Amino acid sequence: MRASARPRRDAGALAARPVESDGDRLLGIAHRAAATSAREPPALQRAHRPRDGLRRPGPVFLRHAVPPPDVRPCPAAARAAHRRGARRGPVLQGPCSRLRGRAGARRRGGGAGPGRRPRRLRGGPGSAIVPSVTAIAHLAEFTLKTTLGDCPPEALAVVRRAALDTLGVMLAGAAEPPARAVRALARAEGGAPLCTVAGTDLRTSPTWAALANGTAAHAHDFDDTSFAWMGHPSAPLLAALLAAGEAELADGAALVTGYVVGFEVGAALGEALNPSHYARGWHATATLGTLACAAAAARVMRLDAPETRHALGLAASLASGLRENFGTMTKPLHVGLAARNGLLAAALAREGVTASARALDGARGFAAAFGDAADDRLAAALERLGRRWRLLDPGIAVKAYPSCAQTHAAIDALLELRAAYRPAPDEIAEVLVGVDRLTPGILIYPEPTTGLERKFSMPFCAAAALADGRVDLASFEAEPAPAVRTLMPRVRMVVDDAIGDDPARRAWARVTVRLRDGRTLGPLLRGPAGHPERPLSDAALRAKFLACAGRVLAPGAAAGLAEAIEHLEAIPDVRALTARLTGPLD
Amino acid sequence: MRASARPRRDAGALAARPVESDGDRLLGIAHRAAATSAREPPALQRAHRPRDGLRRPGPVFLRHAVPPPDVRPCPAAARAAHRRGARRGPVLQGPCSRLRGRAGARRRGGGAGPGRRPRRLRGGPGSAIVPSVTAIAHLAEFTLKTTLGDCPPEALAVVRRAALDTLGVMLAGAAEPPARAVRALARAEGGAPLCTVAGTDLRTSPTWAALANGTAAHAHDFDDTSFAWMGHPSAPLLAALLAAGEAELADGAALVTGYVVGFEVGAALGEALNPSHYARGWHATATLGTLACAAAAARVMRLDAPETRHALGLAASLASGLRENFGTMTKPLHVGLAARNGLLAAALAREGVTASARALDGARGFAAAFGDAADDRLAAALERLGRRWRLLDPGIAVKAYPSCAQTHAAIDALLELRAAYRPAPDEIAEVLVGVDRLTPGILIYPEPTTGLERKFSMPFCAAAALADGRVDLASFEAEPAPAVRTLMPRVRMVVDDAIGDDPARRAWARVTVRLRDGRTLGPLLRGPAGHPERPLSDAALRAKFLACAGRVLAPGAAAGLAEAIEHLEAIPDVRALTARLTGPLD
Repeated sequence: MRASARPRRDAGALAARPVESDGDRLLGIAHRAAATSAREPPALQRAHRPRDGLRRPGPVFLRHAVPPPDVRPCPAAARAAHRRGARRGPVLQGPCSRLRGRAGARRRGGGAGPGRRPRRLRGGPGSAIVPSVTAIAHLAEFTLKTTLGDCPPEALAVVRRAALDTLGVMLAGAAEPPARAVRALARAEGGAPLCTVAGTDLRTSPTWAALANGTAAHAHDFDDTSFAWMGHPSAPLLAALLAAGEAELADGAALVTGYVVGFEVGAALGEALNPSHYARGWHATATLGTLACAAAAARVMRLDAPETRHALGLAASLASGLRENFGTMTKPLHVGLAARNGLLAAALAREGVTASARALDGARGFAAAFGDAADDRLAAALERLGRRWRLLDPGIAVKAYPSCAQTHAAIDALLELRAAYRPAPDEIAEVLVGVDRLTPGILIYPEPTTGLERKFSMPFCAAAALADGRVDLASFEAEPAPAVRTLMPRVRMVVDDAIGDDPARRAWARVTVRLRDGRTLGPLLRGPAGHPERPLSDAALRAKFLACAGRVLAPGAAAGLAEAIEHLEAIPDVRALTARLTGPLD
Repeated sequence: MRASARPRRDAGALAARPVESDGDRLLGIAHRAAATSAREPPALQRAHRPRDGLRRPGPVFLRHAVPPPDVRPCPAAARAAHRRGARRGPVLQGPCSRLRGRAGARRRGGGAGPGRRPRRLRGGPGSAIVPSVTAIAHLAEFTLKTTLGDCPPEALAVVRRAALDTLGVMLAGAAEPPARAVRALARAEGGAPLCTVAGTDLRTSPTWAALANGTAAHAHDFDDTSFAWMGHPSAPLLAALLAAGEAELADGAALVTGYVVGFEVGAALGEALNPSHYARGWHATATLGTLACAAAAARVMRLDAPETRHALGLAASLASGLRENFGTMTKPLHVGLAARNGLLAAALAREGVTASARALDGARGFAAAFGDAADDRLAAALERLGRRWRLLDPGIAVKAYPSCAQTHAAIDALLELRAAYRPAPDEIAEVLVGVDRLTPGILIYPEPTTGLERKFSMPFCAAAALADGRVDLASFEAEPAPAVRTLMPRVRMVVDDAIGDDPARRAWARVTVRLRDGRTLGPLLRGPAGHPERPLSDAALRAKFLACAGRVLAPGAAAGLAEAIEHLEAIPDVRALTARLTGPLD
């Protein structure tokens, strides 16, 4: 994938190297200027390890931040800062910082209106240049300098579980129509056979592999979710990482580092822009996922600091994906596009394509176009990068059912009520499902006609749980049974104040079943199984993986893949993992 | 490029076929259900040809419109229409029409708020299903059924001029860094050698060729513009059309038809969403261009009606591109991405990928996410499709200078003042440039540091015109001369009320030069040369083409290419054209 010449590290030497040195191997010059926690003196290390066990490298990488080489002192920005008394904190520098000054002036009613001469900004005595960084510089710094040693061990365990879950659903999804369609086009377009396409013997170029594997990983909508993202983190990240990893001959530790970096970047952006970003119609998995995948790919592809900044700026111009396409094959495609576009951004940046240093926080940048002018929230969310690990708080939710995550708490509760009381479908008069304010805009198919639509249908999911006693991949493959069809019109979804607006309770439900004889089952109020506070057991996760992967791989091969993922960071060459993903499809 | 089996038409038979049958050859079943103007009885034809010479097929293709097969009667929508007294015109149907009802309810303060039960929509007596089409169905209908016979001959002349201009700047741009970077990656990724990459001997897959050629066509920012698009129509369209045309063995007439369809689709969407879409930070060339290229590619690739609808819905989820990246290499890349993504949408739809029928006008669709809830303007803009040809009104502006179009009127005026008065740079005290309200947000580099930034700098462009007496490709390649640097701080850009907000005057300027001896040159108020009301002469256009193409091709080859484009619709195989684009770069 690398087109121009760059020294490659020796794969043999790499394999022999201990995992602990991953940080040193992966980081470039910028890293060497900064302290890593692994090398800090003991006193400093202690200061970063509070009693809760979550190591926080804190502002270490930021304390050592130097203005990036392509950001130059900007007299206009300094003068503007003087004029407004630096009341908005440090002045952002770089070629676009003048934009911010100008946009700020416009918001305050100044600037160039019709017939008004633009004000000239004049520095008075005491004008000074205040050093600072753009949002992109901040993210690039985090992307390049975070090491596995910085992450709490619990976070690495979360990554291994996410990889097991995601590769399972990717294999199962590879048999689905959207994945097959992407592969048909990938075969027709052709590509250098560098990367594995899961479930098949196809090898193709990194961007096509990322598109195909990402689409497959979301085809069943069975992949994990994140509150911070308001979306699906692992499907796009792993699709991008596998492709970049194979093309770069990376090892498992690089893959895990890339995942951590990408996840945290996506989560920080989600914290800054959601829920208004999502509410406006954007599929956050796709939009934030593009930037997250660009960060992950930039790390695995060992981009330097300017290249990483350009990759993130490029990714801001590649991000897209509309929720209106939920319930169609374009939804899983969004995940493949996020993986492909993140990888493409990193690859183009490495070839020398430039982007604006203010593509995220500029007046015409990502936050302004995709969000609600959330500049202040953006800065605050980035400030927490590396201090709070969103991988652990709010964490990742693993899906127990292959339907929209907003249906899961209701399915859980109804399965429990069914097990306890065994009501016959005929006895049931009404199923009342209370949900949060956003859910009615997500579960938009009260009368679904396809399997994909049934994944976004509370009446179907609730009726299937009550009538069949299970909601699994097969539930969405055959036409609903008569008992399910009978129950569906009796399911009523309402917004329930008891759930509130806390993002951590966004997937909760309160379920009440009213019987014809006047009895009432419930109410049960709860979050779904699989969420961080009620995680799937290791055995349940493994059972899900084997059920999914077993649809494509032989049982022994699926078990072997699970075993390899248990030691993900220790894999010396990612191809030892991807070779286990080949299968008989197509 | 076609992956699954479909009967191909015979290339030999195609070459022998007369151009007039293009419509029949390209259209599918949907076409045969509709009248084409070429076959209408004379009386009907006359009715569509008013005295101004612009033939308007009018509502012919819409009169015959039938609800697309995947749009089914929706009782909820009908009931909602009854409830609101159908005051918003015909009810939009299909799986997502219920969304609109719900969104409308929310806007009016109803709907599901916290603690409020969702209102059930009940139809009263007289509830009826009113047939209608979605925005996507409307665009697909236009895309499939428009024939060259429907277009006024003047429009076809505009397309030929656009092709000549665009292929010239594409060749010149192929030598620029962003185009070279894309090609380096395309070579590394590999691809089936189906399509030509302009200026080189590289042949690659359709999507990579579209990306490379689109990026090249905009690398100098010297390609044509459209008021309706608020962007650059021909660079993305021709990049997509050349790639699709080569892969499909299309002829010149198919290419021209694809251009007309794509241009009008982009212009209609621009009319609906701009200027707020552009003002929010979107690079309309890239966003609208993706949908326009999807329409163009769908037509050349002979998609059927459902596939075309899915391609447009897919394209809505692929569109992106931020203005914050203006002045960097990502801006030309946007054009390549629009071409590549439009083509990708059509290709995926042909492989069976589905998208929402409401991806444009649904509550979480393109217009809502990218615009300002401009539903009503969208319907009105689509209504004019095929009635008013935006190719002729407001037409296409050809650039006389390789800088942002907003600098051109000022350059024109200053060149004229310089020719008339020959003021020495030392004599000039101030250059006052009055512009429209939006221009200060576009020309964002008062102190440019790179060639790309100088293209978006009024001080540089005005100073170069006055000091050098020319603004051409070379002006942006070398460092500014001392005389230019001296003049730049004396250029002042102000918003001028005399220009107003009329979109047709968006690129106008009023220029006044104040000399040190107290004299004033000007003011001159005008639109730029090259705009539809003051088009470049054929000789000037040809001179521009030869100067651009001659940077890469030998003079004879450039002249041969110009000659081929003069008969664009008559070219029996588009490869006879693309073979002339190969060159010695890389």
